[in-house]
Amino acid sequence: MSIERIKNDKVFDGSVEVYRHPSKVNNCDMQFSVFRPQQEQYSSVPLLTWLSGLTCNEDTFMFKAGALKLASELGIMIVTPDTSPRGDNIPDDKDGAYDFGLGAGFYVNATQAPWQNNYNMYDYITKELPNIISSNFDADLSRHGIFGHSMGGHGALTIGLKNPDLYRSISAFAPICNPINCPWGKKALRNYLGDDQSKWNEYDATEIIAAGNYKSAQNIIRIDQGLDDEFYGRELCTDKFEQVCKDNELVIDIHRHPGHGHGYYFISTFIEDHLRHHAKLLCN
Amino acid sequence: MSIERIKNDKVFDGSVEVYRHPSKVNNCDMQFSVFRPQQEQYSSVPLLTWLSGLTCNEDTFMFKAGALKLASELGIMIVTPDTSPRGDNIPDDKDGAYDFGLGAGFYVNATQAPWQNNYNMYDYITKELPNIISSNFDADLSRHGIFGHSMGGHGALTIGLKNPDLYRSISAFAPICNPINCPWGKKALRNYLGDDQSKWNEYDATEIIAAGNYKSAQNIIRIDQGLDDEFYGRELCTDKFEQVCKDNELVIDIHRHPGHGHGYYFISTFIEDHLRHHAKLLCN
Repeated sequence: MSIERIKNDKVFDGSVEVYRHPSKVNNCDMQFSVFRPQQEQYSSVPLLTWLSGLTCNEDTFMFKAGALKLASELGIMIVTPDTSPRGDNIPDDKDGAYDFGLGAGFYVNATQAPWQNNYNMYDYITKELPNIISSNFDADLSRHGIFGHSMGGHGALTIGLKNPDLYRSISAFAPICNPINCPWGKKALRNYLGDDQSKWNEYDATEIIAAGNYKSAQNIIRIDQGLDDEFYGRELCTDKFEQVCKDNELVIDIHRHPGHGHGYYFISTFIEDHLRHHAKLLCN
Repeated sequence: MSIERIKNDKVFDGSVEVYRHPSKVNNCDMQFSVFRPQQEQYSSVPLLTWLSGLTCNEDTFMFKAGALKLASELGIMIVTPDTSPRGDNIPDDKDGAYDFGLGAGFYVNATQAPWQNNYNMYDYITKELPNIISSNFDADLSRHGIFGHSMGGHGALTIGLKNPDLYRSISAFAPICNPINCPWGKKALRNYLGDDQSKWNEYDATEIIAAGNYKSAQNIIRIDQGLDDEFYGRELCTDKFEQVCKDNELVIDIHRHPGHGHGYYFISTFIEDHLRHHAKLLCN
């Protein structure tokens, strides 16, 4: 599959490059950014996939997270895909709302019309994108972690929990932990997956743990949550996820931070802790 | 003068806050962001004023520069004003171009209609904004530095060179060093200041040095320039500025970086060097 580089910027000792490529699973052109550390010139490097939140795109993390200095030092590649299919022909929320449709793919494979031809972000993240990375860059996919923010934290948790053979480390900032029970999640899952709520559970981190449908190792999940996050109680349900992990004896590492909000100021404050969490599991 | 806080986010050990206030010199409401380190709770702190480039606003530096971790450690306040007056009633470039009018105040006091009632960014940066800061925050204005990027690098150099009593340290990323001789500068200066080019010289860093109209101390100016910057030759004229400083025996510190471009990936790579340059001159 052909990919086209459309931007290339040097940063620290590496580069951030943006690529466009035709996506088979989403039936449209997709774009992703990738941070390539200079260490890739000498040997294959560990890979982190970052999943962004609602309204973001492939640029957001690279511009705003403040991750690239330490990623450059650690020699970790980071790929940041877009948050949904894009294009004039891609169906969108009928009211153009920010929380569904464009910019809000929720990392699922849609089964319902008119979404199912394009909104297959689960397969894009777990299959198509890693294939593109391994074909075009010198990343070691046996040392692959996944992390994300908000909707992307939901993506990182669900995808990481369900694919322990693909991802050795998982982390999330302010993730949507129980989408079947929050307004954002209910709207997206009903539209993408239909009215049968039993179909929603496989995309819900709390339900995946509750049902025993995971094989994750202990101590590979880190979560950070700001306590002044306006979405903490209503949309994120971090406490419920922590409880279901305890009930199922899955050890995770949760940090709560007084005064911190939901956005990239919060992320940038703790991004180095997340990179070190992944490095501990990927760089040995 | 009343100011209104419209955003407040915790980041590292401090906060980024956005304020709106009526501006007398620009005859409109203006907004600025300010990073407040926790050290301000205990004593007055040094202040850095950051001037952004074309198209940017008060958020850009805070979101993208990656400066706040080290600023938090060093205990330096950073204020980032907007790049022009704003509002529905503010005159703009007749074609809506990015390089003049809104987002492109060029840090001058306009003398020509219809700009002169609103486009007085020189007075805003050197008088009105510092007064607001000293009235509302615990910043030590005897330890005040100025820095900026591109159009804002031009602002930092010209304002810093002309006001050695106000600013003890100066730095710039990819500054427009000789605006009277580049397309961006000629367009802006002709519109804001009129056809008499002798009026332009006071806003041109190279001309200020050439005319001896500065009293800067030695070794207080740092400049970084990417060598893959698309604007390097045509718009920035860094080499000419370096030469005029040599000719006038003003010692400055210029760093050129192969492979680096014009934007925030370049800035974020070297921002900590700039903060340490200012800290050396402001924090003792």
